[in-house]
Amino acid sequence: MPSISKKGSAMPESPIRKLVPFAEQAKKEGVTVIHLNIGQPDIKTPKIALDAVKNNTLSVLEYSRTEGSEVYREKLAHYYAKNQIHITAQDILVTTGGSEALSFVMGSIADTTDEIIIPEPFYANYNGFATAMGINVVPVVSHIDDNFALPPIAEFEKLITARTKAILICNPGNPTGYLYSRDEIQKLAAIAKKHNLFLIADEVYREFTYDGKEHYSILQEPGLDQHAIMVDSVSKRYSMCGARIGCLVSRNKEVIKTALKFAQARLSPPTYAQIASEAALETPQSYFDAVKEEYVSRRNLLIKELEKIDGVKVGHPQGAFYCIAELPIDDADDFAKWLLEEFRVDGETVMVAPAAGFYASKGLGKNQIRIAYVLDKDRLTRAVQILKEALLNYKGK
Amino acid sequence: MPSISKKGSAMPESPIRKLVPFAEQAKKEGVTVIHLNIGQPDIKTPKIALDAVKNNTLSVLEYSRTEGSEVYREKLAHYYAKNQIHITAQDILVTTGGSEALSFVMGSIADTTDEIIIPEPFYANYNGFATAMGINVVPVVSHIDDNFALPPIAEFEKLITARTKAILICNPGNPTGYLYSRDEIQKLAAIAKKHNLFLIADEVYREFTYDGKEHYSILQEPGLDQHAIMVDSVSKRYSMCGARIGCLVSRNKEVIKTALKFAQARLSPPTYAQIASEAALETPQSYFDAVKEEYVSRRNLLIKELEKIDGVKVGHPQGAFYCIAELPIDDADDFAKWLLEEFRVDGETVMVAPAAGFYASKGLGKNQIRIAYVLDKDRLTRAVQILKEALLNYKGK
Repeated sequence: MPSISKKGSAMPESPIRKLVPFAEQAKKEGVTVIHLNIGQPDIKTPKIALDAVKNNTLSVLEYSRTEGSEVYREKLAHYYAKNQIHITAQDILVTTGGSEALSFVMGSIADTTDEIIIPEPFYANYNGFATAMGINVVPVVSHIDDNFALPPIAEFEKLITARTKAILICNPGNPTGYLYSRDEIQKLAAIAKKHNLFLIADEVYREFTYDGKEHYSILQEPGLDQHAIMVDSVSKRYSMCGARIGCLVSRNKEVIKTALKFAQARLSPPTYAQIASEAALETPQSYFDAVKEEYVSRRNLLIKELEKIDGVKVGHPQGAFYCIAELPIDDADDFAKWLLEEFRVDGETVMVAPAAGFYASKGLGKNQIRIAYVLDKDRLTRAVQILKEALLNYKGK
Repeated sequence: MPSISKKGSAMPESPIRKLVPFAEQAKKEGVTVIHLNIGQPDIKTPKIALDAVKNNTLSVLEYSRTEGSEVYREKLAHYYAKNQIHITAQDILVTTGGSEALSFVMGSIADTTDEIIIPEPFYANYNGFATAMGINVVPVVSHIDDNFALPPIAEFEKLITARTKAILICNPGNPTGYLYSRDEIQKLAAIAKKHNLFLIADEVYREFTYDGKEHYSILQEPGLDQHAIMVDSVSKRYSMCGARIGCLVSRNKEVIKTALKFAQARLSPPTYAQIASEAALETPQSYFDAVKEEYVSRRNLLIKELEKIDGVKVGHPQGAFYCIAELPIDDADDFAKWLLEEFRVDGETVMVAPAAGFYASKGLGKNQIRIAYVLDKDRLTRAVQILKEALLNYKGK
C-alpha cells in the first residue's frame, strides 16, 4: 500500500475530536451531555442575513469573483471605517472562513521550516495550518496568573531567529478571552518593525469586548502598513459559523497580490454565504448590544460559580466567549474522558475541551480546560454544578 | 518591509487572469466580448436545489460536521452506487469544492519535493495546489494528434523516481475533453500497483460524456482500493459552481483519516451549499439528458466550424465542455491580448484561454487555445466567425 505523507502524519488531530466517540456513546445510553467544549454560539443569526438568502433570485449559482464580490468588499470597507479601521476594498480578500485566510497568510509569508511566534495557549488550528504549510510554530508562554496578558517582549526577542517571519496573535483570544490593550499592540508593532516581521492578528472576536473596553486593531496602529495582516470572519460576529466567509485585510499590496494567487487556485468563496454576509452588515446595533449583554452576564455567572469551587483557578476574560480554568487534577484529557464515560448527575454530564491541545509546549495546560460560554445561563449554572461534583468524585488526580 | 515567501512568489497566476484587465477595458469602450475562456456554464441550476435553499428554515447558521453532513454523505453514496461506484458514506469526505479536495489529497500523500505525474495539458490549478503544498508536478505530454489520449505507459515509467507518490488524471479532461477508456484506466491501475503509487482521478465532469461512451471511474477498477483517490464536485454537474461543494472519495482508510485532519483545521464545508447539494441529488434524469444533448450539439457545431478555418487543428472531445484548438499563430498569449485590445468585428471580439498555462513543460501549447463551449449555439457560431476573421487579420504570426 502506498504510504501517506510525513506532513499528513504530523497533522494534529483536533483536541476535542478524540472525545467525540465517548460523547456519542453517552448520548446513546440516554445521558444528556452539556457541551462546554464548542465554539458554536447558540445566538440566533440576524434575520436580515437569513432572509437575504431565502429571498435570493439566482437562476445559475455562479462562481463569484476570486477576491469576493465587489459590492461586498466595498461594504466591508465601510464596516471597518465605522470601527476606526481605514482601508479600501482593494486591501480586502474575501476567503472561505477565517480558516482559509490563515492558510493563505501562512503560505504567502513563510516557507518550509520558517517560523511563526505565537503566544500560547492559542487556537489549536493555527498548528494545523502551519503543519499543512510546513511552517514551525514557536510558542511563547502566557500565564493564567497574568490573566494570559502579552508575555514580556524580551521573551519574544529570545525566540527570534533568521527564520522568524511573523508574530501571530488572536485578539480577543481564543481560548483565553484576553483582550490586548493598545499598549500591548504597540509593543508588538515595535518589535515587528525592529525585526522586520509581519504582525498577524486574528480579530474574529472584535465585537466581543466587555466592561467598557474597546478593541484596538493592528490596522489602527500607524506606521505598520507593510507589517500588519488582519484575519477576520463573519462566523462569530453574526453567529454564522456555517457560512464559511472570512477575509484577509492588509495594506501591504505584495501580501494581497500573493494571497490572491492562492485564492485563484480555489476559484472563489461560496456565493450564498456572501449574500448572507453582505446582508449581515446591515444588522442593527441593538442586536450586538443584546448579544454582548447576554455574554457578559454569562461570563459573570460562570466566573463567579467556578471561583466557588475549591482548587479551581480561572482567567478573567474581557473578550470573546471562552475562558481557561485550571482544575485540581493532573490530566484534563483523562478527566474529560471520565466525565463522558462514567460520571453522571441525574443522567447528565458535561463535555469540556482539555487545554493541552491549545499549547505547543509539551506538558503545559495539562490541568486546564477551555470553557465556551455559549449556553444559556440555566444550563451554564447546571454545567458548573456538575463540574463541581465531578471534581469531588474524580479519583484520577 | 518583510518579504513574502518563495512559495508565494512561485505560485502560478491564473493564465486567464492577466487578460482580464484588457477585457474590462474593451467592455468600457463599448465592445461586446464573447467569452470562450471560462468554465462557468450558462446552464440553469436545477430548481430543486435552488428551492431547497430558498425554503430552508435555519435560525442559527451553524457549522456542519467536518466531514460533511451525515445525510448528505449517505445520499451521495447512493448516487455513486447508481453510477456503478460502490462505496460507503465513510469513504467520503465532503470538501469546499473539488479544489479543497485536491489540496487535501496532495497534502495527505506527498511531502515537500515529492512528485506527482500528470498528463499535460492539465487543469492549471493542479500546479497551484502543488506549489502551495511544496510538491513538484512532473508532466507527461499528450498530443493533439492523438486527441490527447493517454500517453504510452513507457513514458510514465521513464519519469517514476523514488520521490514519485502519485499519478493524477482528469477524466473527462479539462482542458482536452478527452475521455479515458476502460483500457487506459486499467493500464494506469497496473502501473500504480506495480510502483506502489496513488492514482488520483479528478472526475468532476463524470456526467458529461458523449457519443454513447460511458465513464469508467478509477473506483470501479477492482484491486485498486488502496491506490485510488477520486475527487468530485457539484460545480459542473448541477451548474452550481458558486456552491463550493466537492468531495474526496477513497476506500483507503488511512487516506480518509489523514485528509480529515486537514479538514478539521478548516472546521466545516459551507452549510447552505450542502443544503443545495443534497437537494440537487434529486435532479431528474431529464435534466441531464437535456444538458447533454445541448452540449453535444454545441460541440458538433464548434468542431465543424473550427475545422473549416485554414490552418486550425482541433481535438475531438468526447466529454466535459472544452476543446483545445491549435491555431496558425506563434504565440496565443499575444493573440488573445490582441483580440481584446485591437480586433473587433461590428463592435464584438472574443476572449480565449491561451493553452500554454495548461502545460508544465516550457514552450508547449504556445500555438494552442482552450475553448469552453458554455455559450448558446448562436453566440458560439458568431464567436468562431470572429476567430476566423481574426486569424486572417492577425499580423503577429
